[in-house]
Amino acid sequence: MSVTIGVDLGGTNTRAGLVTASGEIVGRARGPTRLHLGAEGVVNGIAECARAAARDGGISLAEVQGVGVGAPGPLDPFDGVIISPENLQCMHGVRLKDRLEALLGLGVVVDNDANLAAYGEQWLGSGRGVDHFLCVTLGTGVGGGWISEGRVMHGFNGNAAEVGHITVDHNGPRCPCGNFGCLEMYASATAMVRRTLEKLEREEPETSLTAEGLTTQVIFEAAEAGDDFAMQMFEETGFFLGVGLVSLVNVLNVDRVALTGGLAQAGDWVFDPAVRTFLDRGTVGVKEHVQIVSAELGDDAGILGAARHAQA
Amino acid sequence: MSVTIGVDLGGTNTRAGLVTASGEIVGRARGPTRLHLGAEGVVNGIAECARAAARDGGISLAEVQGVGVGAPGPLDPFDGVIISPENLQCMHGVRLKDRLEALLGLGVVVDNDANLAAYGEQWLGSGRGVDHFLCVTLGTGVGGGWISEGRVMHGFNGNAAEVGHITVDHNGPRCPCGNFGCLEMYASATAMVRRTLEKLEREEPETSLTAEGLTTQVIFEAAEAGDDFAMQMFEETGFFLGVGLVSLVNVLNVDRVALTGGLAQAGDWVFDPAVRTFLDRGTVGVKEHVQIVSAELGDDAGILGAARHAQA
Repeated sequence: MSVTIGVDLGGTNTRAGLVTASGEIVGRARGPTRLHLGAEGVVNGIAECARAAARDGGISLAEVQGVGVGAPGPLDPFDGVIISPENLQCMHGVRLKDRLEALLGLGVVVDNDANLAAYGEQWLGSGRGVDHFLCVTLGTGVGGGWISEGRVMHGFNGNAAEVGHITVDHNGPRCPCGNFGCLEMYASATAMVRRTLEKLEREEPETSLTAEGLTTQVIFEAAEAGDDFAMQMFEETGFFLGVGLVSLVNVLNVDRVALTGGLAQAGDWVFDPAVRTFLDRGTVGVKEHVQIVSAELGDDAGILGAARHAQA
Repeated sequence: MSVTIGVDLGGTNTRAGLVTASGEIVGRARGPTRLHLGAEGVVNGIAECARAAARDGGISLAEVQGVGVGAPGPLDPFDGVIISPENLQCMHGVRLKDRLEALLGLGVVVDNDANLAAYGEQWLGSGRGVDHFLCVTLGTGVGGGWISEGRVMHGFNGNAAEVGHITVDHNGPRCPCGNFGCLEMYASATAMVRRTLEKLEREEPETSLTAEGLTTQVIFEAAEAGDDFAMQMFEETGFFLGVGLVSLVNVLNVDRVALTGGLAQAGDWVFDPAVRTFLDRGTVGVKEHVQIVSAELGDDAGILGAARHAQA
């Protein structure tokens, strides 16, 4: 049996799966990402998690073909070096590939978590059979992974598909990335909550929503309960997402876009206005062929993509 | 001697070059694109032009390895079928590859003219030695050709790198493509003239410029002569171009962008504000590595890229 290990390194948890050549997860492990122990602790934790996944699958590490690790960007996927992820500051500059190879005695590949989630979805989920595929994560930020001709695209230094940082309004609010009016400032969960809070204060709309404890989940529940203002906030968020998708498809010419992350779970509330805007503003000859769908693999997308990447 | 023929099919002229494996143009021909004769006339004209270029280089068509044709998009580069270029309406649906192969008895490849100009620049001009390269044409519209890992990128149906149709302002003017506030509505020569006319009428600025016969060349001459309003119009145009380049680089992660077309000839008037905006708004870790340069090959870029494409 030819197997690889896929690891998803997050700011809170590290998760690993032992994955067969056909994509079956036959062993699993997870543990907290031990940020308080610094880089050494995090790297050792990844190695332990990989070993535990192999053990869980009943095979020895020596039988594993290789290990793929998805980590938060920015990172250098060519040399497997972490750069400066916001939620893994202790890992800045860590040569993760080299250190894990030394610890595990196996070949290791490291890539951006969003890229590997897209790769996983393209292998076994929402992107199956599609060679030109974009996976957009709507969470705290807006991230992306992009496949062209079946391959994960990196660009010159591994920062391709930073889809959250395309301009929606050149005159919009400043984004931490340095740009103004980025998609992330409009269509992330964080942005949706911020815009809702602003409107609550400024416009005092008729709504059951209040500033206290506001999350996209709360806005979702209000919309489901028929709250017009909450519905309007989804309408706006979906509109901005649609505007962003038009730009992205006009440049990348992908024929399927999968949405994932917290906000994507709001389903039609986000999809309907996004698709409507995309069809209203997209280019004839392209837009008719583009499917905008939900990602299918949830948390396993990253593990599967990492394992797949390690097969190559 | 291994040679191919590169053809640049324009709305006014058809130009061909006989090109060696190392990129020397050893034969040339040109003729009017005979739109009034319909598709038959245009296709025959391309074939004649290719034959004339071979003759000019002193070799017989039988010695030519293949023919590449750059044509205005949209087109299908996989099957070599013209779709519906604005300035070649009579060519709608023409199977250019098949028809030229029958006429010439040679293998023919057809691609978007902007793609092939980028390929030519990457081979022998401003993109030499760069694997992730974008060439942006600032003319009547804003077009683009994009190279990743040394290959021309097409996307799923040949419409990748439609860089003029990314959003700069979601609330901006409607673009003929169906989108609103596209880069092309701000940073093309046409858009610059339109915006200048609007300001002349609305703001009655102190300037030597008048509505009559206004072109970017006229605005350029006024700026060179010290006209503040003309300078401001270049400042604005360069700003919008810079905004667009930030989005494009954040998605494509290219490390060199070449500008070409009429407006690029205004040099520093356009480059300075574009580069300033790019450095102001771009992403740290990426923007420092990106060069924004002038294209080098002028009209020959398309012929050379087409000839190169025919080598493969």
